[in-house]
Amino acid sequence: MQRTPLESLNCSIARSLDIIGEWWTLLIIRDVFMGLHRFEQIREDLGISRKVLTDRLNTLVEHGVLKKVPIEKGFEEYRLTRKGVELHDVLVVVRQWGDKWESPQGPPIELVHDCGHVTTAFLACDCCGEEVSASNVTPQAGPGHSRVRKTSK
Amino acid sequence: MQRTPLESLNCSIARSLDIIGEWWTLLIIRDVFMGLHRFEQIREDLGISRKVLTDRLNTLVEHGVLKKVPIEKGFEEYRLTRKGVELHDVLVVVRQWGDKWESPQGPPIELVHDCGHVTTAFLACDCCGEEVSASNVTPQAGPGHSRVRKTSK
Repeated sequence: MQRTPLESLNCSIARSLDIIGEWWTLLIIRDVFMGLHRFEQIREDLGISRKVLTDRLNTLVEHGVLKKVPIEKGFEEYRLTRKGVELHDVLVVVRQWGDKWESPQGPPIELVHDCGHVTTAFLACDCCGEEVSASNVTPQAGPGHSRVRKTSK
Repeated sequence: MQRTPLESLNCSIARSLDIIGEWWTLLIIRDVFMGLHRFEQIREDLGISRKVLTDRLNTLVEHGVLKKVPIEKGFEEYRLTRKGVELHDVLVVVRQWGDKWESPQGPPIELVHDCGHVTTAFLACDCCGEEVSASNVTPQAGPGHSRVRKTSK
């Protein structure tokens, strides 16, 4: 993994990408969400080499995104931790962007919300409930900021 | 870019990651959102090699995420297309996940919503307005589906 340069950027996006910002990693997480919990199931689904899959799974376990759970006969399964489950939002928005811009045949997978309808989720503000988009938010330095940079929209 | 295996997966997440699922790519898009539009500005900000930055910018232009806009004296700037602007949701949720799980000093950047408050955005259903999360959606085959796979939550 390509750690050093990203760690040096004081940015939560960079820190997240250091863990999940690589093709196989997010697809592995998708597979676990879809119910594939065993090494061989994931390997077969993604057509990925054992070495690459072992590396990525170890990274995800080290970072607390997945945990190994012993099952019968000495086998183990991979399960999402709370930190891993909270990547669901990332999968949803990445999927929706691909559905809209890269899926001319229509979405391969749809999500049915508990309200009973196929949903296209949007980002809403936790204060007012209105949509959050590029045109209605302004970035500002937060408590963990160490570099001041002029920003524009 | 590692295209073949991802293209063969009929999955919008895989297709999106083929364009944006790599460290530098999403950070370049972040930089353009933050007002850095010129090659040298982005290169300096990320500490990235000219070759890698050129490759990534060309990929983003080819896929219609960025466009080159001529400015004075033969110089060019990179601007987000509509397709690029719609990656804002991806940046927001990736940032928020990193803020929560990988930023012990607190968020480096906060987003102030037009309602006047620092926002933590959540995914809401476009039908009912309620939260969308891993525990209240069920995936089903959509119109672009070509493989049927049993899923579980």
